[in-house]
Amino acid sequence: MAANLDGRIELVAGCFSSNPNISKLSGADLLLDPSRVYSSYKVMASKEAALPKSERIDFVSIVTPNNSHCPVAKVFLEAGINVICDKPLAFSLNEGKELRKVVEKSGKVFALTHNYTGYPMVKEAKQMIRNRELGKILKVVVEYPQGYAITDLGNKGESGISNWRMDPKVAGASNCMGDIGTHAENLARYITGLEIEEMCAELSTFIPGRQLDDDGTILVRYKGGAKGILFASQILNGEENNLNIRVYGTKCSIEWFQEHPNELIVKEVNQPRIIKRRGNSYLSAVARKYSRTPFGHPEAFIEAFANVYLAAADAIEDEVSGRKLKKNYDFPTIEDGVTGMVFIATAVKSSNSKSKWTKMLKA
Amino acid sequence: MAANLDGRIELVAGCFSSNPNISKLSGADLLLDPSRVYSSYKVMASKEAALPKSERIDFVSIVTPNNSHCPVAKVFLEAGINVICDKPLAFSLNEGKELRKVVEKSGKVFALTHNYTGYPMVKEAKQMIRNRELGKILKVVVEYPQGYAITDLGNKGESGISNWRMDPKVAGASNCMGDIGTHAENLARYITGLEIEEMCAELSTFIPGRQLDDDGTILVRYKGGAKGILFASQILNGEENNLNIRVYGTKCSIEWFQEHPNELIVKEVNQPRIIKRRGNSYLSAVARKYSRTPFGHPEAFIEAFANVYLAAADAIEDEVSGRKLKKNYDFPTIEDGVTGMVFIATAVKSSNSKSKWTKMLKA
Amino acid sequence: MAANLDGRIELVAGCFSSNPNISKLSGADLLLDPSRVYSSYKVMASKEAALPKSERIDFVSIVTPNNSHCPVAKVFLEAGINVICDKPLAFSLNEGKELRKVVEKSGKVFALTHNYTGYPMVKEAKQMIRNRELGKILKVVVEYPQGYAITDLGNKGESGISNWRMDPKVAGASNCMGDIGTHAENLARYITGLEIEEMCAELSTFIPGRQLDDDGTILVRYKGGAKGILFASQILNGEENNLNIRVYGTKCSIEWFQEHPNELIVKEVNQPRIIKRRGNSYLSAVARKYSRTPFGHPEAFIEAFANVYLAAADAIEDEVSGRKLKKNYDFPTIEDGVTGMVFIATAVKSSNSKSKWTKMLKA
Amino acid sequence: MAANLDGRIELVAGCFSSNPNISKLSGADLLLDPSRVYSSYKVMASKEAALPKSERIDFVSIVTPNNSHCPVAKVFLEAGINVICDKPLAFSLNEGKELRKVVEKSGKVFALTHNYTGYPMVKEAKQMIRNRELGKILKVVVEYPQGYAITDLGNKGESGISNWRMDPKVAGASNCMGDIGTHAENLARYITGLEIEEMCAELSTFIPGRQLDDDGTILVRYKGGAKGILFASQILNGEENNLNIRVYGTKCSIEWFQEHPNELIVKEVNQPRIIKRRGNSYLSAVARKYSRTPFGHPEAFIEAFANVYLAAADAIEDEVSGRKLKKNYDFPTIEDGVTGMVFIATAVKSSNSKSKWTKMLKA
Repeated sequence: MAANLDGRIELVAGCFSSNPNISKLSGADLLLDPSRVYSSYKVMASKEAALPKSERIDFVSIVTPNNSHCPVAKVFLEAGINVICDKPLAFSLNEGKELRKVVEKSGKVFALTHNYTGYPMVKEAKQMIRNRELGKILKVVVEYPQGYAITDLGNKGESGISNWRMDPKVAGASNCMGDIGTHAENLARYITGLEIEEMCAELSTFIPGRQLDDDGTILVRYKGGAKGILFASQILNGEENNLNIRVYGTKCSIEWFQEHPNELIVKEVNQPRIIKRRGNSYLSAVARKYSRTPFGHPEAFIEAFANVYLAAADAIEDEVSGRKLKKNYDFPTIEDGVTGMVFIATAVKSSNSKSKWTKMLKA
Repeated sequence: MAANLDGRIELVAGCFSSNPNISKLSGADLLLDPSRVYSSYKVMASKEAALPKSERIDFVSIVTPNNSHCPVAKVFLEAGINVICDKPLAFSLNEGKELRKVVEKSGKVFALTHNYTGYPMVKEAKQMIRNRELGKILKVVVEYPQGYAITDLGNKGESGISNWRMDPKVAGASNCMGDIGTHAENLARYITGLEIEEMCAELSTFIPGRQLDDDGTILVRYKGGAKGILFASQILNGEENNLNIRVYGTKCSIEWFQEHPNELIVKEVNQPRIIKRRGNSYLSAVARKYSRTPFGHPEAFIEAFANVYLAAADAIEDEVSGRKLKKNYDFPTIEDGVTGMVFIATAVKSSNSKSKWTKMLKA
Repeated sequence: MAANLDGRIELVAGCFSSNPNISKLSGADLLLDPSRVYSSYKVMASKEAALPKSERIDFVSIVTPNNSHCPVAKVFLEAGINVICDKPLAFSLNEGKELRKVVEKSGKVFALTHNYTGYPMVKEAKQMIRNRELGKILKVVVEYPQGYAITDLGNKGESGISNWRMDPKVAGASNCMGDIGTHAENLARYITGLEIEEMCAELSTFIPGRQLDDDGTILVRYKGGAKGILFASQILNGEENNLNIRVYGTKCSIEWFQEHPNELIVKEVNQPRIIKRRGNSYLSAVARKYSRTPFGHPEAFIEAFANVYLAAADAIEDEVSGRKLKKNYDFPTIEDGVTGMVFIATAVKSSNSKSKWTKMLKA
Repeated sequence: MAANLDGRIELVAGCFSSNPNISKLSGADLLLDPSRVYSSYKVMASKEAALPKSERIDFVSIVTPNNSHCPVAKVFLEAGINVICDKPLAFSLNEGKELRKVVEKSGKVFALTHNYTGYPMVKEAKQMIRNRELGKILKVVVEYPQGYAITDLGNKGESGISNWRMDPKVAGASNCMGDIGTHAENLARYITGLEIEEMCAELSTFIPGRQLDDDGTILVRYKGGAKGILFASQILNGEENNLNIRVYGTKCSIEWFQEHPNELIVKEVNQPRIIKRRGNSYLSAVARKYSRTPFGHPEAFIEAFANVYLAAADAIEDEVSGRKLKKNYDFPTIEDGVTGMVFIATAVKSSNSKSKWTKMLKA
């Protein structure tokens, strides 16, 4: 839906299952030309690459579990096809670094779907900080509370909901911190531009029987002196998808809540509170650029996700047209992906060492 | 965007301006086949109708000012082409009634884009009332406050913003009540099922120099004894698109705000307040059917609008496939359109007679 | 509690029931000197008036049903004792006018407990309008929705809750409009300074068996061209005490909600929203004067009520000390009370004449 | 004001400054008998103790900086006078433990003004957990963000606001964690009943020139397996007094915000959200007992503070009347005070040891 929204992207080929029959049936449901519904991603990459440039796909979207992101991306990049890939980047930090080499060598576009950075008011927040409207940033509080994985221990003693994200062979070293903690890390970094210097992490597994974390809290020290609290959880009963961030500066502070995404709250001591609202002419150019409807006509999750596709489409168009790629498209890159993997690995390391303060690992 | 969202509708032809050259250029921007970019709606209707059924358009979307809705719709319906049309239905009540005859004679699908009925939590509200969860409805308060047409009288003495909605030759008998008051009327009727029996209306023109109303309040008596307050305005400084409705029943009451559309508030004396949230399994089947993302991943304006297209697409598919049309697709119909025109005409009549209580005119 | 709060007022005498025994027992509960617990208000007035000035009460608080406000107030005023009286002022407009003569003749302080005007952020709103920060006021929407008097018609067919406010022999011509509609009228007038020129009212009795209105809506035309909507109800299921007001001006607009009284919202087209919060240094002098705690330490109902007592205490101190009374203490006066009675009488008249536009009766 | 509110407590004596002249003037302002306005707390304690029991003060309120709480309390307790004392209990943990011995030996009432436990909806939260409505508690998030001590580093390089709380000779080992962190600790313990087992703390001093912390975050492990995040800060720009708590259980979760104290939010997966509101009949007996006004008539800070006085007054009345003291009055005790001092000392110790996990010190 996010890719469809702006009429700029059309689905023309795909591999929709590791089972060739299911892939074929899904392709038919999607009204695709059967000759472009493939039995495996390898076949897809080689066959599409063999098509004349005007006919073949401009990019592939990888929406598989963590452990296949890199193998799949590698094959397409090496076949000369641009990639838009789900997060987290990889199964492991090393795998992520390897992929970075492939991306760099390929010269192709690689975008990562940290979709929450697509919200216009998130872009407004980033712009305010770039403009130094907050002064020096002292503290960042970013939370990602979910509750879908809670289970009533008392009544049943079962681990409740389980899925591939909780399987270390598929998800990697972390469930919760890898799945949603990385979104929180990415959002805070996107908005503030701050780099983590070291962290003190405690990952927890509240529901017995689970092999990976379902909750975690991290104290953060950023380069330059700011501090942070980052917490993510999947077992906070009744929370839905309550990603939110507060950035406190010496001049003013900002707050944004994903579940009410059209507003950005600005707080300053001895001043009335301010609420900026999407769609208004007083917003920054970038917030207006990634907005589709007038004020008061709310936009939400799908539109934000579509903004990642829009920005990536700019780059892909440049690449496909043979133009030189620019430095600063507004979508998450392979570097963001590697930083996310560093974040996960460092959090696991700190947590395993009794929450010892741990420097960010090498990217 | 709303039509694109679900990948079920594709734009293949159009007339994009009364100026043939502009229409041609717009069609090129949209990457359409030049042979299907038309110089006038009449040419479009006849040429498309002449194409083989498998090639011609399944429906036309009419997104023009009020005074052309009916002429355009008539031409397409008579050419055998289904229609999705902007609201209000017509320039005048009589014109609307004439169009109804054309629709009925044609046997084609006619949908009106009262898009706010597409919100899942609006559908939940409607379903709660159908299930008699509110008991007997006593009072309905529906508001549509906007502020885009305010102007600083004191400083400039000008009429400020003006557009075709304010021109009686294009918009018809009312600006504000026709443009957004009808949305409020439609929303209240969609949710409650109540029919207005009589009304006491005061339409106002606050900004000097305007020929039509820019504000209005209506006291309503519904059939069956409920009462209502409906107000709409375009001059309420700082209001964006704050459509909202409260329905008060003997068992409980509900509230919904378009600017926070993922929640429905339920109030009952001597009971804790309840907030129902989109995307949850406890919602009615219809609210879940018209929902695209999981809980906590907000949906908004475009998705709601797309739901009108989705429901109309069901009917259009039936029609194009030669199946008998059903009675109850979930989109606003020609009858809703005529009722909206009756509402406007009655409001103007009551207002012109010093707010005298006035029976709803004949539909 | 409101009188106690600031340590400036002490309860030293009283008549607490029309039954002398109950009055005596209540006085004992309150630890009063038995010689100053009286068997009737007439005895109280004469005995207190006979005490030396330094010993006798400085004022009496009248907290009885509507039909006794005036007789009681008259006796105390004529005995030379200041009065703080519950609203509405009187059983009828004529009675209220009579009392005004008594007040004027007495030269004593007469304060009416329209307690909602005591909120600091209400005073801030008033001050903003005095400072012409809103520009010209175009529209006022004031609501007072309550739900305590709802009853489940469907299940029981009974009138449910009843009290003296619903008895025309005690309450006067109106229940709902007299009890809470007058608060809404007073709040709107206090804040905006606007005087009603004429109104179009519909009072309703939703619960069968009740003799007076339990709901009402009034369209208002103010002197000078502003318009208004005032509604009050006691049968809106689940509403608690949701008094709120919106004032829309050409420069900006304001909103205040009694259930979240520490905030005042300011809206302006093409500007971020602003929220002013009680206790801050940026507020007007009057909002700060009637505030007791620092920002973020919320104040509420009792403190607002206490502010009426505080302002009245200023006047009473002046009167008792023999100083000339000032023109502008910040509490509701006998004139406010008479205007409230005019409001009730005009609303009943308009409603009885099929909601005909009706000029405000003579005060 | 809190003591005045219910008319149960009267100020009759005091020492209002360490400067005898100022004390005398303040006493006169308060209309006290000059013979009971004292030049020092020692004189006050001995003179009051010498009065006949029926005349002397029933208790003393200690509202001085931290370093004098214990010396003053000790003198009054040893003189046989009950004490209501500001928090934190003492200048140091040892001093607090010493005072506990004095309290125990005296047999007098000692109450600590952790006033936020006085809010009715806080009591409702506590009661829900006692009733096991939340199931097993997994996580507690308690925040106390303030911003009053922020200063614009960039512009002026000064330490900005300073007061005795920031002076280690007066405040003790901590500023922020001692002043407001203890409120957060106390609130979480009051509501949940959970005891901290160990903590990992990072206290920070963001504004150069300050000798004590102005910010801190603590990871908490509770006895029994729950975990917690506690943060408090005085430098979060634009925050006022935003104490709030979230308690997440296996059956449901609750949230409470001090700045909107009349509501308690209840969240549960796959269930609509619930908002409980003060003043309603569906609340627990204890929430109703400590409530003064009907629903919709908000109560706030002063009323909550008054509830600590009310509960302490119950105990003081028992003590003064010679009745045996009960086990469970609803006010914070000397044990709460000692636990608060343990909390501060442990947090400082953990923070000083590079945020090492540190067991709670001995109480």
